[in-house]
Amino acid sequence: MAQKPSIPKGTRDFTPQEMARRNYIFDTIRSVFKLFGFQPIETPAMETLSTLMGKYGEEGDKLLFKILNSGNFFNGVDREAALEDDPARVAAKICEKGLRYDLTVPFARFVVMHRNELQMPFKRYQIQPVWRADRPQKGRYREFYQCDADVVGSDSLLNEIELIQLIDEVFARLKVNIAIKLNNRKVLAGIAEIIGAPDKLIDITVAIDKLDKIGLDAVRDELLSRGLSAESIERLIPIISIDGTIEERLERLGAELSASEVGTLGVNELREVVRGTQHLGLRALLDLDVSLARGLNYYTGTIIEVKACDVAIGSITGGGRYDNLTGVFGMPGVSGVGISFGADRIYDVLNTLNLYPENLTASTKVMFVNFGEAESAAALKIMKQMREAGISCEIYPEASKMKKQMGRADALNIPYVAIIGETELADSTVTLKDMATGTQQSLSIPEAIAHLRS
Amino acid sequence: MAQKPSIPKGTRDFTPQEMARRNYIFDTIRSVFKLFGFQPIETPAMETLSTLMGKYGEEGDKLLFKILNSGNFFNGVDREAALEDDPARVAAKICEKGLRYDLTVPFARFVVMHRNELQMPFKRYQIQPVWRADRPQKGRYREFYQCDADVVGSDSLLNEIELIQLIDEVFARLKVNIAIKLNNRKVLAGIAEIIGAPDKLIDITVAIDKLDKIGLDAVRDELLSRGLSAESIERLIPIISIDGTIEERLERLGAELSASEVGTLGVNELREVVRGTQHLGLRALLDLDVSLARGLNYYTGTIIEVKACDVAIGSITGGGRYDNLTGVFGMPGVSGVGISFGADRIYDVLNTLNLYPENLTASTKVMFVNFGEAESAAALKIMKQMREAGISCEIYPEASKMKKQMGRADALNIPYVAIIGETELADSTVTLKDMATGTQQSLSIPEAIAHLRS
Repeated sequence: MAQKPSIPKGTRDFTPQEMARRNYIFDTIRSVFKLFGFQPIETPAMETLSTLMGKYGEEGDKLLFKILNSGNFFNGVDREAALEDDPARVAAKICEKGLRYDLTVPFARFVVMHRNELQMPFKRYQIQPVWRADRPQKGRYREFYQCDADVVGSDSLLNEIELIQLIDEVFARLKVNIAIKLNNRKVLAGIAEIIGAPDKLIDITVAIDKLDKIGLDAVRDELLSRGLSAESIERLIPIISIDGTIEERLERLGAELSASEVGTLGVNELREVVRGTQHLGLRALLDLDVSLARGLNYYTGTIIEVKACDVAIGSITGGGRYDNLTGVFGMPGVSGVGISFGADRIYDVLNTLNLYPENLTASTKVMFVNFGEAESAAALKIMKQMREAGISCEIYPEASKMKKQMGRADALNIPYVAIIGETELADSTVTLKDMATGTQQSLSIPEAIAHLRS
Repeated sequence: MAQKPSIPKGTRDFTPQEMARRNYIFDTIRSVFKLFGFQPIETPAMETLSTLMGKYGEEGDKLLFKILNSGNFFNGVDREAALEDDPARVAAKICEKGLRYDLTVPFARFVVMHRNELQMPFKRYQIQPVWRADRPQKGRYREFYQCDADVVGSDSLLNEIELIQLIDEVFARLKVNIAIKLNNRKVLAGIAEIIGAPDKLIDITVAIDKLDKIGLDAVRDELLSRGLSAESIERLIPIISIDGTIEERLERLGAELSASEVGTLGVNELREVVRGTQHLGLRALLDLDVSLARGLNYYTGTIIEVKACDVAIGSITGGGRYDNLTGVFGMPGVSGVGISFGADRIYDVLNTLNLYPENLTASTKVMFVNFGEAESAAALKIMKQMREAGISCEIYPEASKMKKQMGRADALNIPYVAIIGETELADSTVTLKDMATGTQQSLSIPEAIAHLRS
């Protein structure tokens, strides 16, 4: 019986039109990665579950796609016990592998396993899909691409400055106006210290991260409900309300945190990154945002987030510095900083603003019309010469009606149609029709090749 | 506790050096696909299991990687019954999705689901990984890439001729000497008919497929054990032993099969493909091989297989015509023909013969030495100009010892090192060192850019 096919929810097919648009984004990001001296790596889609589990918090563990062991997966499993057991514990027994959840943990694993082959500092980029068993919704998929660039093995803030330049270059090429927000984990730690709640760092950041959305009063309520004293909150409010230019805000923040060693360190790091970046000039808006947290457990220094100015879609790129990513795999003391471009959201932004170059989809330059055996044999010979000259071409495979054949060229946006009929066969010419203007001209083969190459 | 990381058996990491080599292969194949008018698509890594099951035979079903349903996968499953049941049946209850096994079945599913958006004939290419729970061994992986090109919606043998040209072009560019073997499923059916064993088609092809490896006597024994009569075997031997030039063999095969309608059709198709191909000229050896079967259940016409002449590694590319690939998904009557390049085996061939172009790994053109804050700030400004000119560059992020910094450029095969010291800072120059020759020259910034671009 014929089955009506479907694909798993949250996944997508990409048609040639969509591929052309996506490849434009990937190619842009990849070429800028290369321009900044990053080198490509790839890791397997499947990782052992022990590599992935516990790296993304409890919620993340639940979102991992697990792969059933091959063959008799009940082998060695107490089936009686499995009857009663918690599904998550049974899963751990019958699944050894999972699909990667991001590119960062596999990269840390890669660095540890290949430490003796790598030249430190190691600058790698990686463009591959990741999988999350999240509830699918608009703009959120179960399979999506990440485009990451990281430098490991260097503490220097030059890396941050370079990465911000890189972000600026990518979005300038894509013609997307962006704002780059900066923060520093040490500033957050300094704030917690200064307001007398160093143990409440996570509660504070979770609450103030919502400032934009819920406003100051609601943040105040949330902080209270999270156990912060009224006194701490009154110390916090002026700090997160600092405004002015980025330089003014850094100065005032420095003054507020002057009694905290870690806070001062954070402000100084921010100042160095901002100064270095502005020295070079930036097309993007650069902004300081002390409420920015992004995966706090993970970042130890600079935190970076990018938003599109003209589309409300959330973060389209983000990253930061981490000081001990490889420690969990037995390699301590490797500091790194990285950024991740969210290709799917960038795709949505470019679609919304229609920012693609023209003629993105046309892959074939010229289609030969098929008039039958002798004519198509001659066409194939000419096509061979054209391909040697780098001109992409195809022939309509059947000698169908002219209208049908022309319809194909039209539908596929193929810019030229080549006609080899009786006349052309006899005098070794080709009639070339420009599909945009409708004009036709009779040319010798070398003339046609020269015309199509220009 | 730190865990010693590993990756699942049969999977691989790819370092920048390996990526450069693999991308050289993928880029070559992709550019030829485009030259022949094929358009890219992508499908999700995960397909619903019902799309995949039963498409690759019983053995193939076992080799599918299945993905455990998220959350409580026991939901709705009778756990008591699952205790006793066959693992394969339990798997079917707790897994709805699987990883794709090849690119052909997902493509068929794609064609059916997108039938109203596609322009027929539809020429697509697809370069993506596939997964098989096969026993890993040398040259066989659990995750590997396929590079497929197919034309669907056309019966014309012009498509076969084009695909053979395409194969020839890919391997000419990769500098690999190949032999292309041709057969036709209709010829196999004709042979079975002529020797009086039309119901033994599969037994015959399985046995004669081994001719090269085990020799004529062993094939004779195997055919007997598979229930062929001695008389049928004596009729078969001369047919599979035909030799001579490809034209002579086609002629003799035509004579042998003249009493079979389907066999004659097959020989005529082969003749047309061979003639059309030779008319255009081919760098590869073209050969007829009536013992070639390749996924018999699936192909209905032309069968193509490619072997490397200089490395014994089995088939590196293969394909053929299928007449009803989409029928199982409710869309009958769509004929297609396609080929699949085995990227991993081609990679092994190129590694064995060392056929890569030189300077494949260098991604950074120039590395700036770091002498401290003022010098690196000046370097970043120059790097910005260089990148605008398309020159990839990086700076050593720390002001480490000169020897250590130069060591990095050396290890990464970076062709140039740029030095901005006190002198250069003072007179706005850069000292450029050519790492291959060891020569140094002092240049103005525009001179350095011009030098690096040339």
